[in-house]
Amino acid sequence: MQDLASQLAEVGRLCYARGWALGTSGNFSAVASKNPLTLAITTSGVDKGLLEPNQIVEIDERGRVVRGTGTPSAEATLHLAIVRSRGAGAVLHTHSIWSTILADAASDPAGGLTIEGYEMLKGLDGVRTHEHREWLPIVENTQDWSAAAPRIEAKLREHPEVHGFLIQRHGLYTWGRDLSEAKRQVEILEFLFEVMGRKRGMAWPL
Amino acid sequence: MQDLASQLAEVGRLCYARGWALGTSGNFSAVASKNPLTLAITTSGVDKGLLEPNQIVEIDERGRVVRGTGTPSAEATLHLAIVRSRGAGAVLHTHSIWSTILADAASDPAGGLTIEGYEMLKGLDGVRTHEHREWLPIVENTQDWSAAAPRIEAKLREHPEVHGFLIQRHGLYTWGRDLSEAKRQVEILEFLFEVMGRKRGMAWPL
Amino acid sequence: MQDLASQLAEVGRLCYARGWALGTSGNFSAVASKNPLTLAITTSGVDKGLLEPNQIVEIDERGRVVRGTGTPSAEATLHLAIVRSRGAGAVLHTHSIWSTILADAASDPAGGLTIEGYEMLKGLDGVRTHEHREWLPIVENTQDWSAAAPRIEAKLREHPEVHGFLIQRHGLYTWGRDLSEAKRQVEILEFLFEVMGRKRGMAWPL
Amino acid sequence: MQDLASQLAEVGRLCYARGWALGTSGNFSAVASKNPLTLAITTSGVDKGLLEPNQIVEIDERGRVVRGTGTPSAEATLHLAIVRSRGAGAVLHTHSIWSTILADAASDPAGGLTIEGYEMLKGLDGVRTHEHREWLPIVENTQDWSAAAPRIEAKLREHPEVHGFLIQRHGLYTWGRDLSEAKRQVEILEFLFEVMGRKRGMAWPL
Repeated sequence: MQDLASQLAEVGRLCYARGWALGTSGNFSAVASKNPLTLAITTSGVDKGLLEPNQIVEIDERGRVVRGTGTPSAEATLHLAIVRSRGAGAVLHTHSIWSTILADAASDPAGGLTIEGYEMLKGLDGVRTHEHREWLPIVENTQDWSAAAPRIEAKLREHPEVHGFLIQRHGLYTWGRDLSEAKRQVEILEFLFEVMGRKRGMAWPL
Repeated sequence: MQDLASQLAEVGRLCYARGWALGTSGNFSAVASKNPLTLAITTSGVDKGLLEPNQIVEIDERGRVVRGTGTPSAEATLHLAIVRSRGAGAVLHTHSIWSTILADAASDPAGGLTIEGYEMLKGLDGVRTHEHREWLPIVENTQDWSAAAPRIEAKLREHPEVHGFLIQRHGLYTWGRDLSEAKRQVEILEFLFEVMGRKRGMAWPL
Repeated sequence: MQDLASQLAEVGRLCYARGWALGTSGNFSAVASKNPLTLAITTSGVDKGLLEPNQIVEIDERGRVVRGTGTPSAEATLHLAIVRSRGAGAVLHTHSIWSTILADAASDPAGGLTIEGYEMLKGLDGVRTHEHREWLPIVENTQDWSAAAPRIEAKLREHPEVHGFLIQRHGLYTWGRDLSEAKRQVEILEFLFEVMGRKRGMAWPL
Repeated sequence: MQDLASQLAEVGRLCYARGWALGTSGNFSAVASKNPLTLAITTSGVDKGLLEPNQIVEIDERGRVVRGTGTPSAEATLHLAIVRSRGAGAVLHTHSIWSTILADAASDPAGGLTIEGYEMLKGLDGVRTHEHREWLPIVENTQDWSAAAPRIEAKLREHPEVHGFLIQRHGLYTWGRDLSEAKRQVEILEFLFEVMGRKRGMAWPL
């Protein structure tokens, strides 16, 4: 747990440095125990640029703190839903400029964002070629994640091919078998969002 | 006071690193004593990338230096007006690319900038939902802040819901109960300015 | 070899810091021995922000590991093709936002990208004046570099004036007599890509 | 001289970190002696990210090295012309993305770039109000600075109000009484170039 907390704190500081977790935005978790399920997760309202291991608490599968002090992120139920539906070992939520902009409105009829044909896509788990079509659902923002989490968990079970999702005007959720895989997926997706976003500002078509 | 000066110097260096206080721009203060009111405030003309505690002076409520050496920022009267009208414990003025651009001209009929519907707004003091409509007044720039400060103080008393304001082609003022709250609000607002600014460069509507 | 591995690791971390090798993207090599030819090259799937010398292996001219542990980059055959056809001492592949965008589609009839009239071009090997017209071929992306490398090697022999090439939606390859020359060319070309890319977003013509 | 060389090296590394002196671009000088005039100046072809004091040489008023080893920048005659015509104590040439783009073509009939009405202008030497109209000449690029320097020196004498100039597709020259003033002016002007450049990408008018 101590080791996980240190690694989560380091990931948080890296995301802050890149501008992906300014203010008190962003939250990060990793599975501390599989059976019974517990998560190490960042507490609410902390400055990610100064994130320290003692700002990480351990919660059980109902979101109650079992170790450490502090209030877990209000989105803890979302982390638990992702861990359950995906068997993820780590869940990272970044709140970057480009993910916020691209999550402003769905850009495809299925209500999501489609990214296709980029080499960088191969950094996503299981993708073997750039000739890949990645689809990220864009879900509505809410302040009641306990109510919304089951719907998102159902959506993730319905779309097992998905590597992340966007929350409208709120940012990205992605995950991985462990923290380093989840960090890699954050970088891949944030890179692709910036490419997509910058291209939309150009005089030539997408 | 020594501790406050160190914290202000650190905030200054962080803002410089992000490009929010280049040249000698930006100025930062925190309440050192409430009764009588004194402020720790950055001196004029210093390089924020090299900001040291000894470049912070303590001023009284009339802006006179009571501790340390150096000339307080020419905008000290504005800091004092904000502290008085808001009960703020810290006031930060950043001078970023995006706040300068967005403060070029009012974008709403009320003479300000409106930001609405972003999750990041919840980082502002007292905001509980993304379904929030934040309005920032844009005030005219001047070189006579002693004359302008009472007008701005009156405007802030008239709009108690406001979390910051922009000065035309000059940047942002925001505040907080203490320095870490003020720093959080700087990051929240600068993030939202960048989102708004980048969206204006795009082919799709706001 | 140990020294080369340290230098490659440092170049990798610098490219990561600039956002040119996020996720596990980018790969970097330098000639360890000329006769027989061996290359020090980054292994596949490593985080360039944490790149360490022990993540560099030595491969022979057929791409087989002769020192160190790990799988060499899948693009090792491309590095070897460049070293053979150009006599390069180091080969760097960055995967930046702007090179990805500019490599989206050829912007000239010859199937490449033309950059002309910039002082920065003088940082390219042998260029003596800003009145220079640099042409970078844009090659198709593939997942079979063993098959594609001979075609690229032939193209490079056909165009001895070329200082780098782009892979469609995948990034830049450039090289130099040694690692510091290759690093200089990466910076020159990435700078020029950003200039070209940003200009395309503007209201005034290229 | 040793102290000056250390300060120049630090300024060079800072400019490199901000992306204003990539590749081997940029060159920096400071007056080492007034009578006879000598300059400490960066040598040609060095990596500004690794700039060390021993990569700074001292030259006399004819550009000959009088201390240290290495070739002074090819633009040394330009530095000397600026020192002579302005009485500057330090001269900095940055080669940033935005200065390169804005120096692509004159944007006013007088053959320069006009920046007006920004608070940041007050960071320029002698400017007391934001209601200031700064004009930067844009001069043609050349590879023969010995021939061009007298013309630029004459232009600077003709326009004593000027704080810097742009070279077409090549970047910025500015100066100051000492190195910290010159550094401040670099930051002021680079900030304003970025503001101007980003505004040109927007849907609303300048």
